Amino acid sequence: MIQELSHIISQINPVEPEWLARARERLDSLTKPPGSLGRLEELAARYVAIRGELFPPLEKKQVVVFAADHGVVAEGVSAYPQEVTPQMVLNFLRGGAGINVLARHVGAAVEVVDIGVNYDFPELPGLISRKVAYGSRNLAREPALTQKEALQAVMVGVERARAAIAAGADVLAAGDMGIGNTTPAAALGAIFTGKPASTVTGKGTGINDDTWRHKVAIINRALELHKPQANQPLEALAKVGGLEIGGIAGLILGAAAARRPLLLDGFIATAGALVAARLAPGVTDYLIAAHRSVEAGHQLMLETLGLTPLFNFQMRLGEGTGAALGMGVLEAGLKIYKEMATFGEAGVSEKQS
Amino acid sequence: MIQELSHIISQINPVEPEWLARARERLDSLTKPPGSLGRLEELAARYVAIRGELFPPLEKKQVVVFAADHGVVAEGVSAYPQEVTPQMVLNFLRGGAGINVLARHVGAAVEVVDIGVNYDFPELPGLISRKVAYGSRNLAREPALTQKEALQAVMVGVERARAAIAAGADVLAAGDMGIGNTTPAAALGAIFTGKPASTVTGKGTGINDDTWRHKVAIINRALELHKPQANQPLEALAKVGGLEIGGIAGLILGAAAARRPLLLDGFIATAGALVAARLAPGVTDYLIAAHRSVEAGHQLMLETLGLTPLFNFQMRLGEGTGAALGMGVLEAGLKIYKEMATFGEAGVSEKQS
Repeated sequence: MIQELSHIISQINPVEPEWLARARERLDSLTKPPGSLGRLEELAARYVAIRGELFPPLEKKQVVVFAADHGVVAEGVSAYPQEVTPQMVLNFLRGGAGINVLARHVGAAVEVVDIGVNYDFPELPGLISRKVAYGSRNLAREPALTQKEALQAVMVGVERARAAIAAGADVLAAGDMGIGNTTPAAALGAIFTGKPASTVTGKGTGINDDTWRHKVAIINRALELHKPQANQPLEALAKVGGLEIGGIAGLILGAAAARRPLLLDGFIATAGALVAARLAPGVTDYLIAAHRSVEAGHQLMLETLGLTPLFNFQMRLGEGTGAALGMGVLEAGLKIYKEMATFGEAGVSEKQS
Repeated sequence: MIQELSHIISQINPVEPEWLARARERLDSLTKPPGSLGRLEELAARYVAIRGELFPPLEKKQVVVFAADHGVVAEGVSAYPQEVTPQMVLNFLRGGAGINVLARHVGAAVEVVDIGVNYDFPELPGLISRKVAYGSRNLAREPALTQKEALQAVMVGVERARAAIAAGADVLAAGDMGIGNTTPAAALGAIFTGKPASTVTGKGTGINDDTWRHKVAIINRALELHKPQANQPLEALAKVGGLEIGGIAGLILGAAAARRPLLLDGFIATAGALVAARLAPGVTDYLIAAHRSVEAGHQLMLETLGLTPLFNFQMRLGEGTGAALGMGVLEAGLKIYKEMATFGEAGVSEKQS
C-alpha cells in the first residue's frame, strides 16, 4: 500500500507557469480594466493552469465528507456527545445538514464516507462504507492509529478522489464530521506550524475556558508522549491524528495527481492538507482555501501552506460548508474568464497611454 | 418632487429587533453549533427582519446599473476615454460585461438605466432611458448638477426601485458605469467621512501616481470652490456628485421604503449610500455591503455607514459585480435558515451542559 501511495505522490507536479500566463493574457483582453476582478481572475487562471487547457469545463462538483470518531473524547474535550457523529451522518444522508444545503446551492453532489464512525450503520443509500476502525484511540494515552490504519485512511481518500474523477468530477471539496476532531487537528497544527498547542487550539463546537485549558493540556501531553515529527507526516497522523483527517489528506493527493483543484474547508480539512503537503509539496498548487475559520490556529495553518482564504465569514461548522461556498466563487471566476466579451468583440476602447 | 422624496423618506424605518430575535431562535434550533455559520446566519436574520416575515421568499433578484458621464474627465482624471461609457452600455445590453456574467451566475436580472450618458442611444431593447442630462458638468469649475437635476436623478432611482419591486423583486443591487466617476465618488467620500481627499481618493480604473496627485488636487479645488456640507446631502450631490450616484441613492431609498434589502457594490455605490443615509439614516438597516473595493476610501466609507463587507476580493470594476456575488451569499444564508433540519427533526443530540 505504501508503494501505491509513493506512486500517487510521484504523479503530483506543480502547475506550469505558461498556463497561468496564457490565462492572464485572455483575462486582460476582456472588457474591464486589467486585474479589476481581483481574486476571481486569480481563481480562473489557477483553474486553467491546474487543468492544463485553455477553456476547461467546470460542470461536476463533488463534496466528499469523511466521518470518524475519536477516542480522545473520553478526556472530555468536546461540547457534544460522541453519538452526534452517526446522528449527523444520517442527517447528511437525508439532506438536512448545512453541507447539504450549501452543496445544493452551488450545484455540488455530496458523498458521505464512513471511514471510522463508532457505530454500525445498516446499508444505506448514499453511504460509502470504508470503515478502517471504530474510531481512533485516545491520543492522550496511546497512538491514535496504527501506522497501517493511518496509511489505509489516506488510501481511502485517494480511492474516493479517483472514483469521483472517474465519474467526471471537475472540482472536489473535502469535508469532515467527527465529534472531538478539533483536538487531533490542533495537535497536527502544532506539529506542522511549529507553534505551541495553546496558539493553534480553539474552542471547537463551543467549549468554555476551563475545557479549553484542559484540551490544550491533553494535546501537550500527547505531543510529549508520542514526539511526532513534521518530517514524518504519516507517523504524525498515526500518533495524534484521526481517520477522517487521513481521508482528507488522501483526497487531496488523489485530486492533485489527477490535476483537479480541491477546495479546502476549515480547521480539520487544513490539518489534512498539512499532512498531504508534507508528503507531496506540489499539492499546494491544487488547493484553494475557501475560508478562514474562527478556530484559533487556522490562519497560521493556511499561512504554512502559503494559502490566502477567500472568505472570513466567522464560520466554524466544518462538513465542507466553507469549501462548498468557495466552489461557487471558483465557478464565478471561470465564467468571467469564459463568458465575458473581449474589447475587440464588444467594440470597447482600451486604456489610454 | 421634493415632497415626493420627503414622503419616501418618511416611510423608511429601522428593522424591528423582534424579527432578528425570532430568526435567531430558528437558527439556533438547526443541526449545527449555535452561530457556527457566522455571517450566513447574520444575513438570514437580517433578511427575515427586513421582510418582516418568518419565511420570506427570495426568488427574484434585480441588479440596476445606472450609467452617466462626467464633465470632470476634461481635467484628465481617468485612464479611459469618455466614449467607453456608451460602449459599455451596449456591452451590458448584449450580455458581455462582467456584471452580466456574475448576475447570470447568481440568477439575477440586469437592468441598464441611461440616467445621463453623453450619447444619443437609439431605442434599444432592455435600455431604460431616463436621461436627466448629457452628463454632469466639470465639478472643478462649476457645480456638477443643478439642484433640480440632482433631485431628478434621485427620483429616477426611487422609480426604478418601485418598478422592480412591483415586478416582484425580493432583493436589489445597485451598479454603476461612468468614466470618471471615482472623482465625484471620492469627493462625496471626503465630505461624508470628514477625511481629506488624499485619504479617500484611489486610482480608479488604473491611473499612474502623477495623475492620482492631479485627481486629488482637482477634488480639493472642487471642495474649496463649492464648500459642500455633509448635512446638506442633496446639495453636496449637486455640487460634486454625478447622475448615476444620485440614481443609486434613490434606488436605496426606494428599496428601504418598500422593505427590500439592497446589496451595495463598491466605491461608487457606497458614495450613493452615503447620500441616502444622510437623507434617511434608517436605510443602513437595509444595506448589505458585498465587498471591500481596492479603491482607497471604500473601507472608511463603509465604516461611516456601520457596514462590514462580506468579501475582500481585490475587486475594483464596479457595475454591480461585487453586489451580484453578494446576492449569492445572501441566498445561501437564507437557504441555511429555511432548509436545514432542526435538532428535533433530525434526531440529533444537542450540546451538553
